[in-house]
Amino acid sequence: MRRWNGWGDETNSLDLPPNADMFLKDKIGTATPLPSVSLESVMSQVPVSRLPEHPLIVVAEEDRVRHARGQSLPDLLASRSGDFGVFPDGVAYPETSDQVAELLSFCGDKDILVIPYGGGTSVVGHINPFQSEKPILTIDMGRMNRLMDLDKDSLIATFGAGTPGPQVESQLHAKGYTLGHFPQSFELATLGGWVASRSSGQQSLRYGRIEQLFAGGRVETPKGRMDIPTFPASSGGPDVREMMLGSEGRMGIISEVKVRVSKLADQENFYVIFFPEWSKAKDAAKALVQSRIQLSMLRLSNAIETETQLALAGHEMQIALMEKALSFRGADSGKCMMTLGLTGSKAQCNAALSQLKKIIKSFSGIYTGTMLGKRWEEKRFTMPYLREALWDKGYAVDTLETATNWENVDNLLNKMEESLRTALNDENEKVHVFTHLSHFYGQGCSIYTTYVYRTADTHQKTLDWWAKLKHSTSAVIVNNGGTISHQHGVGKDHAPFLPVEKGKLGIMAIRSLCDAFDPEKRMNPGTLLVDTNDE
Amino acid sequence: MRRWNGWGDETNSLDLPPNADMFLKDKIGTATPLPSVSLESVMSQVPVSRLPEHPLIVVAEEDRVRHARGQSLPDLLASRSGDFGVFPDGVAYPETSDQVAELLSFCGDKDILVIPYGGGTSVVGHINPFQSEKPILTIDMGRMNRLMDLDKDSLIATFGAGTPGPQVESQLHAKGYTLGHFPQSFELATLGGWVASRSSGQQSLRYGRIEQLFAGGRVETPKGRMDIPTFPASSGGPDVREMMLGSEGRMGIISEVKVRVSKLADQENFYVIFFPEWSKAKDAAKALVQSRIQLSMLRLSNAIETETQLALAGHEMQIALMEKALSFRGADSGKCMMTLGLTGSKAQCNAALSQLKKIIKSFSGIYTGTMLGKRWEEKRFTMPYLREALWDKGYAVDTLETATNWENVDNLLNKMEESLRTALNDENEKVHVFTHLSHFYGQGCSIYTTYVYRTADTHQKTLDWWAKLKHSTSAVIVNNGGTISHQHGVGKDHAPFLPVEKGKLGIMAIRSLCDAFDPEKRMNPGTLLVDTNDE
Repeated sequence: MRRWNGWGDETNSLDLPPNADMFLKDKIGTATPLPSVSLESVMSQVPVSRLPEHPLIVVAEEDRVRHARGQSLPDLLASRSGDFGVFPDGVAYPETSDQVAELLSFCGDKDILVIPYGGGTSVVGHINPFQSEKPILTIDMGRMNRLMDLDKDSLIATFGAGTPGPQVESQLHAKGYTLGHFPQSFELATLGGWVASRSSGQQSLRYGRIEQLFAGGRVETPKGRMDIPTFPASSGGPDVREMMLGSEGRMGIISEVKVRVSKLADQENFYVIFFPEWSKAKDAAKALVQSRIQLSMLRLSNAIETETQLALAGHEMQIALMEKALSFRGADSGKCMMTLGLTGSKAQCNAALSQLKKIIKSFSGIYTGTMLGKRWEEKRFTMPYLREALWDKGYAVDTLETATNWENVDNLLNKMEESLRTALNDENEKVHVFTHLSHFYGQGCSIYTTYVYRTADTHQKTLDWWAKLKHSTSAVIVNNGGTISHQHGVGKDHAPFLPVEKGKLGIMAIRSLCDAFDPEKRMNPGTLLVDTNDE
Repeated sequence: MRRWNGWGDETNSLDLPPNADMFLKDKIGTATPLPSVSLESVMSQVPVSRLPEHPLIVVAEEDRVRHARGQSLPDLLASRSGDFGVFPDGVAYPETSDQVAELLSFCGDKDILVIPYGGGTSVVGHINPFQSEKPILTIDMGRMNRLMDLDKDSLIATFGAGTPGPQVESQLHAKGYTLGHFPQSFELATLGGWVASRSSGQQSLRYGRIEQLFAGGRVETPKGRMDIPTFPASSGGPDVREMMLGSEGRMGIISEVKVRVSKLADQENFYVIFFPEWSKAKDAAKALVQSRIQLSMLRLSNAIETETQLALAGHEMQIALMEKALSFRGADSGKCMMTLGLTGSKAQCNAALSQLKKIIKSFSGIYTGTMLGKRWEEKRFTMPYLREALWDKGYAVDTLETATNWENVDNLLNKMEESLRTALNDENEKVHVFTHLSHFYGQGCSIYTTYVYRTADTHQKTLDWWAKLKHSTSAVIVNNGGTISHQHGVGKDHAPFLPVEKGKLGIMAIRSLCDAFDPEKRMNPGTLLVDTNDE
């Protein structure tokens, strides 16, 4: 069964490698874990539902607890302290678009607020309920999880919007196809959620972001049903698809998603290359993407992330040997690890490999083959489990991410890391901070920064520290040429920072769309846009 | 000087090859050219301007005639008959964004309607003025034609929105870069116009559509200035860039455009391949694009277009020899011509060429090298001149284009051609119709159909025939799974057909954006959306 207060299935967990403890102790000090409350104690807090009866709505405490929070660090803290604050008044599990429409109509009649729910994997508060005088219904799309149609000629698959990553891929694989959308949240997140929050997957270099994969589909809105047709491209005015991408439940509920799929590739491999120092590594990554080498995936860790990953990788002997060899070839303490993927026909992969080897050589890159790439592939979705393991040792871990233009990458990366590293100085607490670049574009890339700090002596204080780290660094991002998010979306945590990048008229435009589809402001209030007049 | 009543510069023209006349005579009969009026006679019709004085506004007759029409066939007919109907009341030529803002503010104060004007190359009526009780100002962006900034690290160039294709490329080439946006309208169309109408260029397979090239920029709107930042990608809610793409002047005037450029490629070649029949040719094109071979351009002519192009190509001897050789190898009367481009490093081009040769072979394709590809390259922007040459012989020519999914390509193509071929049956007129596919996507492609008919005995009757051809076939497109336009935009001619593809809620959403930026409905009314309540 799925964990109610953490990531993934209860039968899955990840053990920290033996040296991880020591590594973090050395970096930020010995930690003491905080206690965790039981599901029963949280269920006993759940107030009586304010929802009128409806055959599709469940008001059982456990359903309401399980839909009260996502997967942000504050959400984890809430589930461990039991301090949830608010619960939805009920949960509905529609099985068809018609049932979604029926629920929206019911909510309109009875003046009920609506939260659309996919996999509940938001790390920025998309699906959290809020204090409101009106009852709140969470609509869980998880039962709409089937491949409904596959057009093999046009490579268009139609799915129920609640289909999670593994079921998307398994249903397609059975027929020889793949979507190729692999975000970290793959195990639990859903297709509809990816569209609603403008997700990006690890192999976006080949398959594109969800913006490129989302071809059309069905949206149930307070103003009625909207079917978005699937054209390969169009100059027929502003694109309605693009209005739904990132709409975060404010305009309606995406119920059926048509995606652009690919035939399964003949071949796929991941390779690791080391560079002696950051600036050469970064320039190599830029050269690879700007010269349009056909990569399917690219990730570049800075020196601290490289050190951290190698320390936490396990297989100490093997790693030590490799590091010795690298050191001999000039990649020592400041070395940076690049992981890249090649996917396609044999001829394509061979051509790309020979082209990229030439480029990395000119930046002093050391090609190490597929050994570490295989390890990356095995562990590509396990980072959320690592968070649980660290929590149990008394460490809180969270990430911040953005995207910016190449000319601004170093500037913004340094400012973000510095902001996080110093945010708890007043508390005399150290923060371990490291970064990788991923999702590369000719114009720039995403910056993905992880930070680890010791939990404080209470859950509340740990949350206060998180707020210091998160808010100060979010401000650094938007005031220094970064987008508030490259792949996590806006939710409630990022909403106050969105106006800086969108500007007054940009926010006005987005609000006009929300108001057009949802004139009674019933859909997911507080998410995406701060619902006050002070923007 | 630019022609006032046709395409391009007065010093440029194209002679029909000697056998063209005979070819068309054989297909649709002998034609008699219609007379053309003089510029002076049209200028004498221009009424007194209703605009109040402003230092940036010119009310001279010639300026108003030259900005009254675009480049559609009805526009050509108007300029040849002198039956313009409406002229703008004046033309302004701003040189800065501030001047654009000043003009919009003046128009707000004085209740003046505004038509933004780029290169005046619309073929669907984007910039045509309309009967109105309010005065109409056309704002010609042509003086904002400079490269303002080039970020070589992030590959972002900032241009004045009025920069036409040749000046975009020459200013970038001088520094070693290219935008790579080459629509048929390249010679005269502007960057701002491409953004406003969602344009696509011949090499979109490598460089992307204008949606991928447009990184951000400045828009002056009735509600004020909006600066759109240039992130490589973002999940920060709905994308404001995408709202401006295809806005067709309804939300404001794009004054500065930031585009994603590329370093000039080492190598570029165009190749021609023949297939013995359509279905193999189409399947080969689909296989090429779905297997992600790195092509920069792909175009596939059906049998009638192939026959027509070879007949009108000139170089009769050379073509006859080639056709003999093709016939010997199995590509005879039903043969279809594919043109494709390879652009990139030498290694990339070589790899792609060897990969694609394998694929085309399996569909019985006959590779003929670069001879015809070179000819295509030389003539890639001359089609509009051909229209003038045909007009002088008494033939009217126009095109219709759409995009659809692979599974629907044959169905829609056949219905479009059939609709055009039979539209003038009641008039006992034949129509010569031929088609190519271009702009290929994994999901589908665009369908670009050309039709030629004899002009009638009056301009008005010729226009009536056009309306029959255009309206019936536009209805065929939107009612059979095609978008109303893949690359020409909506303008006024396509606006009545847009609601079929966008649906009631899609139109509502677009209208809500227009109303948010332009609450007084001052910007380009009648374009994009039909301004009545009957949608």
